[in-house]
Formats: sequence, C-alpha cells, structure tokens
Amino acid sequence: MSVYPIIMSQGKFIHKDSLYFPFEERGSQFGDGVYEVIRIYGGAPYLMDEHAARLMRSLAAIRIKLDYSETEVKNLLHTLIEKNDTTEDSFIYLQVTRGSAPRVHTFPENTEPNIYAYIADKARPLNLLTNGAHAITLPDERWDNCYIKSLNLLPNVLAKQKAFDHDCYEAILHRDETVTECSSSNIYMVKDNTIYTHPATNRILHGCVRSAVLRFAKEQGIHVTEIAFSTGDIQEADEMFLSSSTSEIIPVVKVDNQPVADGKPGPVTSKLQQAYEKEIGISSE
Amino acid sequence: MSVYPIIMSQGKFIHKDSLYFPFEERGSQFGDGVYEVIRIYGGAPYLMDEHAARLMRSLAAIRIKLDYSETEVKNLLHTLIEKNDTTEDSFIYLQVTRGSAPRVHTFPENTEPNIYAYIADKARPLNLLTNGAHAITLPDERWDNCYIKSLNLLPNVLAKQKAFDHDCYEAILHRDETVTECSSSNIYMVKDNTIYTHPATNRILHGCVRSAVLRFAKEQGIHVTEIAFSTGDIQEADEMFLSSSTSEIIPVVKVDNQPVADGKPGPVTSKLQQAYEKEIGISSE
Repeated sequence: MSVYPIIMSQGKFIHKDSLYFPFEERGSQFGDGVYEVIRIYGGAPYLMDEHAARLMRSLAAIRIKLDYSETEVKNLLHTLIEKNDTTEDSFIYLQVTRGSAPRVHTFPENTEPNIYAYIADKARPLNLLTNGAHAITLPDERWDNCYIKSLNLLPNVLAKQKAFDHDCYEAILHRDETVTECSSSNIYMVKDNTIYTHPATNRILHGCVRSAVLRFAKEQGIHVTEIAFSTGDIQEADEMFLSSSTSEIIPVVKVDNQPVADGKPGPVTSKLQQAYEKEIGISSE
Repeated sequence: MSVYPIIMSQGKFIHKDSLYFPFEERGSQFGDGVYEVIRIYGGAPYLMDEHAARLMRSLAAIRIKLDYSETEVKNLLHTLIEKNDTTEDSFIYLQVTRGSAPRVHTFPENTEPNIYAYIADKARPLNLLTNGAHAITLPDERWDNCYIKSLNLLPNVLAKQKAFDHDCYEAILHRDETVTECSSSNIYMVKDNTIYTHPATNRILHGCVRSAVLRFAKEQGIHVTEIAFSTGDIQEADEMFLSSSTSEIIPVVKVDNQPVADGKPGPVTSKLQQAYEKEIGISSE
C-alpha cells in the first residue's frame, strides 16, 4: 500500500515528503478533525459527491469552517488524481483538522484549518468478496455521535484489532445487544428476503456505500427496513453482509465462530454485489 | 504560552523546530495514543510519579508497548526540564502514539511508538483560584473508557468550547443526570461537610490532582465519599469545586447561571487549596 508522490496540502500540490505539520496540531493532540476515504477504481473516484457532502456535514457538526466550498474540495481531489496520473485501484485519504495552535481545549482564534489529501494503492478484497468474512461481536464503546466521521478512532482501532486477534475481519458492535455497525463498516442482516440495518441516527456512520446498498436494494425490489436487529437475531439470519468504501459489500459467513445460516454467501448479498460491480463498471460475467 | 526550545522526541533532545512526524501517523489519523500534562512549579514537576504511573496504565489499556520503563520516562522528563533550564511555572506535555505506519485500523507490525514531550509556560490561574469559576452542565457524550487518557478528545473540546460560548470556564458532564466529571477536570460537591465525587470507574479520568484532593481531605479530617451526585443535587450543594493539573483546585460558584449556595468560594474548598499550596511550597500567609 504505497502513497502516490503528489499530495494536496492547504490547497497546494506538493511532494509527499514535504508535508509538515507542527507538533501542536489539533488533529494530533485532540483528534480535532474529520476525514473521508474515497475509493478510486481505475482512476475514477466512486461516490465522490456523497463523500464531499458528508465531509461538509462532519465539519459543520464539529464547527470547523473550511475555506473551501464542497465544489472546491471536489475539484482539489480531482486535480490530485490527475497530478498523480492514477489508473490503479486506490483510495483518497482526506483529512481536515481545526489547525495548528498552542494546546488549549477551546477553539483557537485566527487559526486556519489544516487540510491534506493523498492517494494510496488499494486492491479490491476479491477473496473476501467471494468467500465472505468472519466476525466477532463486541460491545459498542464509542461516543454518542458516531455519525460524525471524526479522527477519534481509538475504540474502532481496538475493536478491529480484537477481531484480528480472533482471526476475524470485523467486529460487529452492539449497545445492550442492539447491533449498531462494525468497527469500520456498516452491517446488515437478511431475514425472509428483507434487509435489516440500523437506522441512520447518531449511533452509526452514515456510510456512502450504505446509501448505495439501500439504493441497489430498492432498484432490485428487495425490501429494506432501517430497523436495528439484535445480536440474538444473528443466529436466525438467512444472510449477513457488511459494507464500506474499501470493503465494498462483503458477505459475513461466520459470527462468533458460528456459521450464518449455511455458512455460505447468500443470494441477496450476491445481487447487491452485482449491482455494485455494474455501477463501478465491472462486468460480473 | 510559549514552548521551550528543547523538546524530547524518541528519547533524544532536539530543537522544537526539528520535530517531524510523517502524515501517516496513528496519533493524527486515529487518535491512537495517550498523553499526560504534568505541572511544573518553579522548575519542579508536581506529582510526576502519579503521572508516569498513569501513562503506563493508559499505554497498557490500549496495548502500546513503549520501549522505555516508567523510570526511564521520568528520567527523560527530568532531563527535559534540565536542558530547558526551566524555572517558571509551566507544564510538560507528553504524548505517546502507536507510531507511523500506512493507514489500516489494526495495529501495525514492527512499528516503534512515537514519543515526544515539550515544556510550555503556564501561569497559575490566580483569579479563578480566588474568585471561582462558572460552569454549565452538558450530557456526557464520550466513550465508555474515560479512564484512559487518550488523544480522542473531540467531545471534550466541543464541551469546553460550549462552556466558553456561555462565558463559563468548564462544562460539568452528566450521564442521565449522574455527574461524571468536567471536560478537562474532575468535579466535587460539598454537602454537610462531606465531599462527594464520582468513583474512579471507567467513566472518569482518574485525576492525579483528584488523588491529591482525596489525600488532602483525609489529612484534614474532611469526610470524602466516592459516590456520584446528580445534576439535581447541585442546587442543594454547600460548595462545588473542580480539579486538574492546570486548574489546581478551583471553586465553582455558579452552575447554569445559578449561584452555588451563596455564590462564593466555600471553606472546605479553601482548606484544600491551602493544602495544595503547602505541598507545592507556596506559603498562603
């Protein structure tokens, strides 16, 4: 996973080795910022509008005033792709913090936000897409405003690592048995041809691929209900799957070491994967 | 608030302008690290042992393996003070992250933690110590493991700023009316000569000055009970005060625009302040 040489920093395009933030940086000292990860397929960004809109919502939620409009941010990212002549499958990481200032909790005055973005290689997770992933369940210990895509990701990191320690790909998080989402993806259950997923409240990140999944389902006549399911429901599920910008739509075939239904990827998940691949321009034939 | 010229980075002492972390740094991208703020009075660190011990507990809680022992960390900080010839009231900011690595949630392999520390000027908050502070109450929206002194401080930043917006010094946080702590300090209520404060569970930071406050109270024969109080109890309080390494022990004389008791600093708080000043070598006569 290598970073492409040209990065965007403060609206300028510089070599990646030139990026320098002072140590009194609010992203580093407080996690006082937000970010986006945008998928690039063969040089073309996927769901760019949705990511840019969510960035603006996250910024507004934590009261960071960016000097760039939503359109200007998108233009900066398009230029970043061009300047790197990106043609491989990759992703953009975009981060905005409240800026560099002496360390006090309150917002610094007259401080410009720090914005940077880079592109790194990222292959599609073909094996997981085909064969499915294993997951564990864990209590959701995060803060109350998970809809903000903030840099405060320590609970996500710890949950993801715990999944990895159990030879699993993801941790399915729950609050008092109500399943919210995974450590870095949204989660869905299929039961009697209906897709269940947690509503887009403050308790989950409103995934861009999640929106696409709901759209694909409606287009295909698959019933979707944004009603949360419980950890207890998982053993009765016909299918489970997760989604994120880097995971796409991955079947979840085993949870807490128990197979989901027959332990194989299911037909509803497969239909959604096909719709996804069609949208990104890949023929599944 | 100016930073002293020599900082400690990775165990070495360098000029502050030389510190450079690459942008793929887990402190910046995930808040995947912990920190301490240690008060220095006239060149001497206060409660250094307690801070170093807490750093080690925080590191263990998030599974960062530091190459330095607790004693070595303290030695590095003492050397930092010497090299800067610090004699003013100031503080040490010490940060440890999981290190610099390509961005994935799981722990990177073969990656050395990043550790740095610097000293910055900080005068004692004499006006607040004498006249008291105003506070607002806000819902505690943080994660479940507030005993870890992590870099995930966005909810603290937002709460502190909201207090500031209301011309207040602090935000008193509560979960379903149960008062936990403030955005960057512990909080106490005095009622009938008993001090009430939230027990040292996962819901609050176990403040080093908090431990000192409990010790001072016992030494002075003031009854302390580590039982949480509610927001509703505040209007019946005889006194309120808060504590932190930079705030010391500050009376809270107004909450949500209502005076606490007669709206003046109380005698129990004053006794604790005197014990604090005695310990740091300041005569209150």
